Amino acid sequence: MSATATPEERFEFITRRLGEVLGGDLIKNILSQGVTPKCYWGTAPTGRPHIGYFVPLTKIADFLHAGVEVKILLADVHAFLDNMKAPLQLVAHRTKYYEYLLRAVFDALGIPTSQLIFVEGSSYQLTREYSMDNYRLCATVTEHDAKKAGAEVVKQVESPLLSGLLYPGMQALDEQYLGVDFQFGGIDQRKIFTFAELYLPRLGYAKRAHLMNEMVPGLTGGKMSSSDAGSKIDILDPPEVVRKKINSAFCEEGNTSENGILSFVKAVLMPISQLRLEREAEIAKGGSATLGAVRSFVPPDAPPGTLFTISRDPKWGGPTHYNAFGDLERDFAEKSVHPKDLKGAAINAILALLEPIRAAYEASKEWQEVAALAYPDPNAKKHEKKKKEKKYHPPPPGKGKNATKTQDKPVQDAAKPDVPVTVEPPSGANVKVTASQQNGDR
Amino acid sequence: MSATATPEERFEFITRRLGEVLGGDLIKNILSQGVTPKCYWGTAPTGRPHIGYFVPLTKIADFLHAGVEVKILLADVHAFLDNMKAPLQLVAHRTKYYEYLLRAVFDALGIPTSQLIFVEGSSYQLTREYSMDNYRLCATVTEHDAKKAGAEVVKQVESPLLSGLLYPGMQALDEQYLGVDFQFGGIDQRKIFTFAELYLPRLGYAKRAHLMNEMVPGLTGGKMSSSDAGSKIDILDPPEVVRKKINSAFCEEGNTSENGILSFVKAVLMPISQLRLEREAEIAKGGSATLGAVRSFVPPDAPPGTLFTISRDPKWGGPTHYNAFGDLERDFAEKSVHPKDLKGAAINAILALLEPIRAAYEASKEWQEVAALAYPDPNAKKHEKKKKEKKYHPPPPGKGKNATKTQDKPVQDAAKPDVPVTVEPPSGANVKVTASQQNGDR
Repeated sequence: MSATATPEERFEFITRRLGEVLGGDLIKNILSQGVTPKCYWGTAPTGRPHIGYFVPLTKIADFLHAGVEVKILLADVHAFLDNMKAPLQLVAHRTKYYEYLLRAVFDALGIPTSQLIFVEGSSYQLTREYSMDNYRLCATVTEHDAKKAGAEVVKQVESPLLSGLLYPGMQALDEQYLGVDFQFGGIDQRKIFTFAELYLPRLGYAKRAHLMNEMVPGLTGGKMSSSDAGSKIDILDPPEVVRKKINSAFCEEGNTSENGILSFVKAVLMPISQLRLEREAEIAKGGSATLGAVRSFVPPDAPPGTLFTISRDPKWGGPTHYNAFGDLERDFAEKSVHPKDLKGAAINAILALLEPIRAAYEASKEWQEVAALAYPDPNAKKHEKKKKEKKYHPPPPGKGKNATKTQDKPVQDAAKPDVPVTVEPPSGANVKVTASQQNGDR
Repeated sequence: MSATATPEERFEFITRRLGEVLGGDLIKNILSQGVTPKCYWGTAPTGRPHIGYFVPLTKIADFLHAGVEVKILLADVHAFLDNMKAPLQLVAHRTKYYEYLLRAVFDALGIPTSQLIFVEGSSYQLTREYSMDNYRLCATVTEHDAKKAGAEVVKQVESPLLSGLLYPGMQALDEQYLGVDFQFGGIDQRKIFTFAELYLPRLGYAKRAHLMNEMVPGLTGGKMSSSDAGSKIDILDPPEVVRKKINSAFCEEGNTSENGILSFVKAVLMPISQLRLEREAEIAKGGSATLGAVRSFVPPDAPPGTLFTISRDPKWGGPTHYNAFGDLERDFAEKSVHPKDLKGAAINAILALLEPIRAAYEASKEWQEVAALAYPDPNAKKHEKKKKEKKYHPPPPGKGKNATKTQDKPVQDAAKPDVPVTVEPPSGANVKVTASQQNGDR
């Protein structure tokens, strides 16, 4: 944003549209000292990022535009632990894939990435210092508090794994080891964030601020399609696939409360338009902002300030232009905007958004190679799927050489990479975590 | 033992007097191949080792005599975590102190220590590989199984710490990282041991054997004195202190079931006598065994095979010589051995046992220096105790610079080193752990 923005303006910009801010004074303080605030957002490189990732990325674009240093934690250790059948080497390819993709998103949006830093969890989460701090934390935290912290994001199953109790503490330590001032995530992370605020100081470390996005339902979700595995939109899906998936998404006339498309317009498309208008204004004033390759979502003849346009045939009333989400929501509730028209407008905007990202993919041989390694074609070795599944039978106690040392050899079922699942991850969702795990994709 | 011992004889020797053996075939196999079996026993270097340590050490003397390679894990990470007020530097001094002391014990007993290896937990428990395996294990083990494994040895409190759930897994990984064939501990470790047998193979590692000592009550314990903090006998206590503590120990006429002194005779004094007789026999045959500086516990005129002698004035029946514990136990139950006589005999044997260890301490300036650093005089800075205790008050959420980073600076109350507590640790007790923690001394 403009170099002349005041600390108050920058704070406003950093915290706009959020669901909740904890420790805002800390960020105000940093801004008033003219220091660059630093933040982190984490994601575990497992399945291919889908369109739901735009929810946190849109907010991260705000941060970057406001001059925040953003560290994206590619939580490879967590990705590996979530599915130990995937060998570390596969996770390494996926980590690279995520970095290619996320950079392409910001490039396409014209958001400068000089302040964007990718960090792999394994680069510090296995060090002597971190391990010791992890043990110290475990000797400070009660089982009860760890369990409570993870209650909303760690998969709640009958026989929970021990790792679920470690993740909240690790996420707290990440703040210290990444050296950030605040952590960003979905509001489903709230208990993990307040846990971090309580426990980091007990280890002698600073309490950090926490910025939270509202939860956003999956774009194609809604209860009717939530079990349809094919409905999730990969960021690199070709236009015809995107069109088909959105057209088959649940979007009931007049229903604004269960409407993934409306939610996506609110949380992603309008904010991206907004950010574009702000940068256009900056450029008009001679500023150095750039717009990126993503086309505007609104037609050239739309009135100034328009963020989203429903285009209709003149015989149905012609186009309607919106400069605030509330108006669109009201019109949809009153059925003056038909689901078909909303879908059509969303398709056009989403295709405009994805087009330069897909173009970047198609122009990059390196990225394509990484993609092939990260997500091997499930059909390539289909015959292997027939293999009898090996089940582990522990040898009976005391059975001598049964116990001969074997090598640690996690089995990768190449024919079964992460299966895409339906419900898109609660946008702001943090890493390790699992609104995510519930989606089976992290 | 004799180089001509058969694998069967060595196995018999390794497993004699144990409460339970799991996976004995594994050890038989190793012995039959002429390979040296390797084992580990762990202890956390916290308070000064007291006389109860002789229970596991007596069995370890058997292992060493049978040519087993014994690794003693000085679990410094655990010691630090158990009491984070003690800084790491203090734990490092205590670790050295433990090594001095344990070596002195085996030297005094004349047990060769060429196969005795001391390993500090921090030398491998904070490495990248171990940390990753720890995470893998946590992503494999359920909370339920971890809790069950620690049920008997992890302190059962209302708000248990997360670390208590990690210790069983770490103890399993120790077997792998120390490269041993079996782990030795008290029978209170049984659930931790079977946990290791189940889970190590799931990480692709070999299942190990587990050898367990029976639990032995504290020497001066018994219910009457168990809350008397002064009754625990430090291995370096001077003779007059040892005498006084044993004389005031609970030892009721005819009561053999709650009798720490009888138990100590059974678990330590008679086995040490036995080991001495065996080595005398070996020497007589021209073998290379040595006897060490500990005097025999029986008078020179005792009949061959005598393991323990109750000396009495001729007017009370004169001395009685025992070559089996059962006879002594029966005589005590029948009140033909009076507590005073049992105590007198125990005092003489224990003084004989401790004398050369104390002499080694007094001859070693280095050891004394380490002792002064490891256990600073609690009276030296008594005035500091008056200092107001600092209590942690977390700053209210969002309170800006309250959260400024502070250095991790654990506070060591030099005036309050580990306070000796009464009940001696269940002899075979393993490290981390806590029949031990219940005693507050590990």
